[in-house]
Amino acid sequence: MKAVRLMGPEEVRVDDVAEPELVEPGDAIVRVKQTALCGADLFPYHGMTPGFESGTVLGHEFVGVVEAVGDGVTAVKPGDRVVNTSMISDGTCPHCRAGRVTQCESRALFGYSGVYPRLEGGQAELVRIPNANRSLFVIPDNVSDDDAVFVADMLPTGYAGVRRGGVALGDVVVVLGTGTVGLMAVMSARGTAREVIAVDGVAERRSLAEKMGATGVTPDQAASAVEAATAGMGADVVIEAAGVLPALDASLELVRPQGTVSVIGAHFEPDYPLNNLLMFEKEITLRFSIGDPTRDRERLLATIEAGVMKPSQVVTHRMSLDEAPDAYRLFDAREAVKVVLSP
Amino acid sequence: MKAVRLMGPEEVRVDDVAEPELVEPGDAIVRVKQTALCGADLFPYHGMTPGFESGTVLGHEFVGVVEAVGDGVTAVKPGDRVVNTSMISDGTCPHCRAGRVTQCESRALFGYSGVYPRLEGGQAELVRIPNANRSLFVIPDNVSDDDAVFVADMLPTGYAGVRRGGVALGDVVVVLGTGTVGLMAVMSARGTAREVIAVDGVAERRSLAEKMGATGVTPDQAASAVEAATAGMGADVVIEAAGVLPALDASLELVRPQGTVSVIGAHFEPDYPLNNLLMFEKEITLRFSIGDPTRDRERLLATIEAGVMKPSQVVTHRMSLDEAPDAYRLFDAREAVKVVLSP
Amino acid sequence: MKAVRLMGPEEVRVDDVAEPELVEPGDAIVRVKQTALCGADLFPYHGMTPGFESGTVLGHEFVGVVEAVGDGVTAVKPGDRVVNTSMISDGTCPHCRAGRVTQCESRALFGYSGVYPRLEGGQAELVRIPNANRSLFVIPDNVSDDDAVFVADMLPTGYAGVRRGGVALGDVVVVLGTGTVGLMAVMSARGTAREVIAVDGVAERRSLAEKMGATGVTPDQAASAVEAATAGMGADVVIEAAGVLPALDASLELVRPQGTVSVIGAHFEPDYPLNNLLMFEKEITLRFSIGDPTRDRERLLATIEAGVMKPSQVVTHRMSLDEAPDAYRLFDAREAVKVVLSP
Amino acid sequence: MKAVRLMGPEEVRVDDVAEPELVEPGDAIVRVKQTALCGADLFPYHGMTPGFESGTVLGHEFVGVVEAVGDGVTAVKPGDRVVNTSMISDGTCPHCRAGRVTQCESRALFGYSGVYPRLEGGQAELVRIPNANRSLFVIPDNVSDDDAVFVADMLPTGYAGVRRGGVALGDVVVVLGTGTVGLMAVMSARGTAREVIAVDGVAERRSLAEKMGATGVTPDQAASAVEAATAGMGADVVIEAAGVLPALDASLELVRPQGTVSVIGAHFEPDYPLNNLLMFEKEITLRFSIGDPTRDRERLLATIEAGVMKPSQVVTHRMSLDEAPDAYRLFDAREAVKVVLSP
Repeated sequence: MKAVRLMGPEEVRVDDVAEPELVEPGDAIVRVKQTALCGADLFPYHGMTPGFESGTVLGHEFVGVVEAVGDGVTAVKPGDRVVNTSMISDGTCPHCRAGRVTQCESRALFGYSGVYPRLEGGQAELVRIPNANRSLFVIPDNVSDDDAVFVADMLPTGYAGVRRGGVALGDVVVVLGTGTVGLMAVMSARGTAREVIAVDGVAERRSLAEKMGATGVTPDQAASAVEAATAGMGADVVIEAAGVLPALDASLELVRPQGTVSVIGAHFEPDYPLNNLLMFEKEITLRFSIGDPTRDRERLLATIEAGVMKPSQVVTHRMSLDEAPDAYRLFDAREAVKVVLSP
Repeated sequence: MKAVRLMGPEEVRVDDVAEPELVEPGDAIVRVKQTALCGADLFPYHGMTPGFESGTVLGHEFVGVVEAVGDGVTAVKPGDRVVNTSMISDGTCPHCRAGRVTQCESRALFGYSGVYPRLEGGQAELVRIPNANRSLFVIPDNVSDDDAVFVADMLPTGYAGVRRGGVALGDVVVVLGTGTVGLMAVMSARGTAREVIAVDGVAERRSLAEKMGATGVTPDQAASAVEAATAGMGADVVIEAAGVLPALDASLELVRPQGTVSVIGAHFEPDYPLNNLLMFEKEITLRFSIGDPTRDRERLLATIEAGVMKPSQVVTHRMSLDEAPDAYRLFDAREAVKVVLSP
Repeated sequence: MKAVRLMGPEEVRVDDVAEPELVEPGDAIVRVKQTALCGADLFPYHGMTPGFESGTVLGHEFVGVVEAVGDGVTAVKPGDRVVNTSMISDGTCPHCRAGRVTQCESRALFGYSGVYPRLEGGQAELVRIPNANRSLFVIPDNVSDDDAVFVADMLPTGYAGVRRGGVALGDVVVVLGTGTVGLMAVMSARGTAREVIAVDGVAERRSLAEKMGATGVTPDQAASAVEAATAGMGADVVIEAAGVLPALDASLELVRPQGTVSVIGAHFEPDYPLNNLLMFEKEITLRFSIGDPTRDRERLLATIEAGVMKPSQVVTHRMSLDEAPDAYRLFDAREAVKVVLSP
Repeated sequence: MKAVRLMGPEEVRVDDVAEPELVEPGDAIVRVKQTALCGADLFPYHGMTPGFESGTVLGHEFVGVVEAVGDGVTAVKPGDRVVNTSMISDGTCPHCRAGRVTQCESRALFGYSGVYPRLEGGQAELVRIPNANRSLFVIPDNVSDDDAVFVADMLPTGYAGVRRGGVALGDVVVVLGTGTVGLMAVMSARGTAREVIAVDGVAERRSLAEKMGATGVTPDQAASAVEAATAGMGADVVIEAAGVLPALDASLELVRPQGTVSVIGAHFEPDYPLNNLLMFEKEITLRFSIGDPTRDRERLLATIEAGVMKPSQVVTHRMSLDEAPDAYRLFDAREAVKVVLSP
């Protein structure tokens, strides 16, 4: 079968590989219908993921149809249209038992190796799914593949920024960085907030945010936009979805006293120079979160089904699996906001 | 000056009375620009308020301009355009200190007597405002009188149903009774909920709810609408805004297990036959709330200012103060959803 | 093997019955070391459980050692010392997935039939455990059988009253009814509350509550004790653990405005005359809860292990399985607070 | 009258100064009975407070008797025994109205100048209290001066660490630094937590924490103590009460995934090297807090009155106002945990 593999830094290849097979009783095999590229894929793409193994099949967001299931699988059956969770979890470790699924002791990310145990991804014709009872979820009939693929990772991540940020009715919310995750945060916050200020240097991204009802501004305009919206008080919640340090710096400035900076951008800096003076004076809460599709997928799929959210509106490029090398180049160059591939 | 007074059951009169004067250092005098009728006014109107004194000036919702202030008033000054809080509070009793302003030991309701200490209301050309630092709030320039008058009582009450009901992103919310308070609850919930099901027997009221984005259904249709929206699970939050027992009965049926019935309708029954079997089996939370403008007015005015809420869209009748007797008749006959009077 | 069976109203018998066997892959067989009587057992004992089948083995609280497990059981193995959850759940229905385990669509209670699907209880030498991965939990070495048996039901129920009541540091908490569940609530609340007022008509029960640090009072003294402890404000949280209507009536009187009445007593009245006047005036929250051992057992076992809680201090009678008929008589006559049986 | 003044770095002097007088209608004059030294006083003591004015009277924690009040003061009267709030607030700015009193636009700290508007402190025979309705609180008869003085600042600060840390029943809590604030956090957490691990390099401080029921360990032992108490999971809540960077570093290591680091130590570093890798991987919440006596004093005084807390047990030195220069030397040398002075 065809599979998109990362052979080395910036070397994406579409290869013919052996089809996956059921290994454990909890496994399922899924025939992929649609799969998306994620910003997190750019870390291994640039060789920044220690221990990443050459040849790992990429992709942790996909929608497909169940082909086969092991004896222990009861939650899905062949023929079901399903979406995955970007990370797998065992459901039995102390973290899972306490509801902290994203911290599962056995967690692994589809399409990754090195920092987690290797797990072949979904940018392929077929993919093996461990713990399928937990890792797959049946998509309601009225939800399209296009929308459902966002439930694997992007939408729960954006939503986590809002949920763990504690956005309340009438708040002013800032979203820093309106790539896909940031746009999902805008979409999750806009009905509850009185104003969502979306900050991004790229006009196309600001424009997508504005279509969702946000006020789009450039990084330079952020401070004055917040000033105007809050009579100088500062934003109730700032969602940092850019994953870069200037955005984190800005978050502390833009948030109001006793407000929350909710970080959903990925961060790996071992020594970010945090302004403790500001943290202390303003009694800020700085909270990092990983999206949790296991927890939130039902709620989010129901919300999509009700017509309240339409995540697929952010897709800018639709390509075939064969075009994966080009897709990664475009995405890396920020010429595409969101790319989906179909086998 | 002209004032609308209740002389006895169903006997509303517009009389010429003495102008109010500053009595305490904390007092203000307000020249009324607009005042609204509230469902709570119908209790004394029908002689159902024990001890209500003949001649009390009616009205606990009004917008006006400050005419004069006592020595102790610092929060407003003559010329300010203001909205009142329906109830006054002292800010110093143990309840106020603990943030439970609606439970203030000195609470009194404008336009009421008997159950609370008599306090002349705002359906008059002028009204005296005790504790003006707390009881009045300056209206932002971009918020119209029409919208601001809802902040005195109706909007904080509808919002309290949502806030104390704990509505979360993607919930299904039922609002029972879409008079003004119910409509304010619909408006407060709809951006956060994935679906708001608004239940009312009156077509005009359902239609107003639908304009706000709710699904309008008759009481007979409520169970099947909730069934359809929640795959039979039940509504996450039911807001009882009708103040009648059949609505309370229905709430317990419509809410999902471990859900919340948030009651903002007024209730005075000493022995409502509560279905404990259902309460226990479904682990229901039944929570009664009184609107708290002191707590929520700034947030709500900012939300109106941001264009996210437009409460005045529910006004069906605009009349002059002189027409008050007719206004009460119409309102009592449920021919009007919301009536505002201007002197 | 020996088993305690209920043949008809007040007819408890110790019979020789067939040993249970593994039926489903998720089953385990447990050899019982200790089992307790629960107030909930008195409903079928008095013939008040519709459809209860003669011959059902009683008992939903037990500690034992795993004898055998089916192929699908991974969480426990033969030789493990374990405690059960009073109710079984499937972990896969929509309620379980949403974390509402006590509302599982397949719930069944050990030792019950009629209102739930029949499930033989643990007052026997051996018991079959469905869904053993969820229904059993390994007991830490330092926790005695005596203490662990409370984690099956009583302690999570008392704790649920505190958790869902929202008890905060420095609160005044009232516990109405200090049978075992009430005492577990006292134990859960006393470290956080500034005062726990334990109300019971039986001196021995008050005395047990006082040993745990509560102030024991009779029902007649409750109002004045709360008055004194709160300067007339009312209790922050009232936990109704008696399951009788006078206690529920008293709860509404004793709680402060905007306080919570947290009901963990069992209630089945279809038409309890609720005082809505009080509910509305005081903005009371009335919340019913069922204990959730699946959710809380780890936290509670760790707390017992740390020496902070010692639930077994409430055991008043230790008897053999053969004495079960006497045990039920004593317990029903309220001569015993808590009875444990050993085979 | 006598007053303790800071003339320059490490130059504390007891001088004869003019008695304060009522200036504003909201003022009160208090005759001081007892006043305490606070770690925050060591910043100006070492010349680290920019703009601190030579001659400022020190002291932001005191108990005394009201001597005189202005026309606008209604909450206290001459003869009342009172405790202050360390900071004054106006009650009318947007932050105060939103309940964020510690962020008041007009905040000033008794005994400070430079970073806040100058406000003479309470280490004197008499002190002027602005906004006395808010800044003073009458002490219940059964609460001693010794205990009440902690309510001005120390106890609300320690309690804020627990409250904003979200400590729940059965949690394992670490308190880093058991000076007075850390000990107040231990006292606030110990009834709710299953174990409080108190970390300090000074044996006397560990010993005070152990008397309160904590497990006292040195910084070197902290990791293994947490490992043992949590089966390697990490502490649910870590309270950083030391105000030094190694403690902040350790907090991130000791807290469990999705746990909270609640910082109540003072921090002014503009570029603390925060380990974002750990923040992101473990989804940590890092929350800074300032104690809020206005919000929490009633709850805390009631808890002291109920006998549940006895803050004065941490007092190690009692001296006269005349000995203030020695008191500051002892305290700065960490030879004293808590020093109180009496005029």
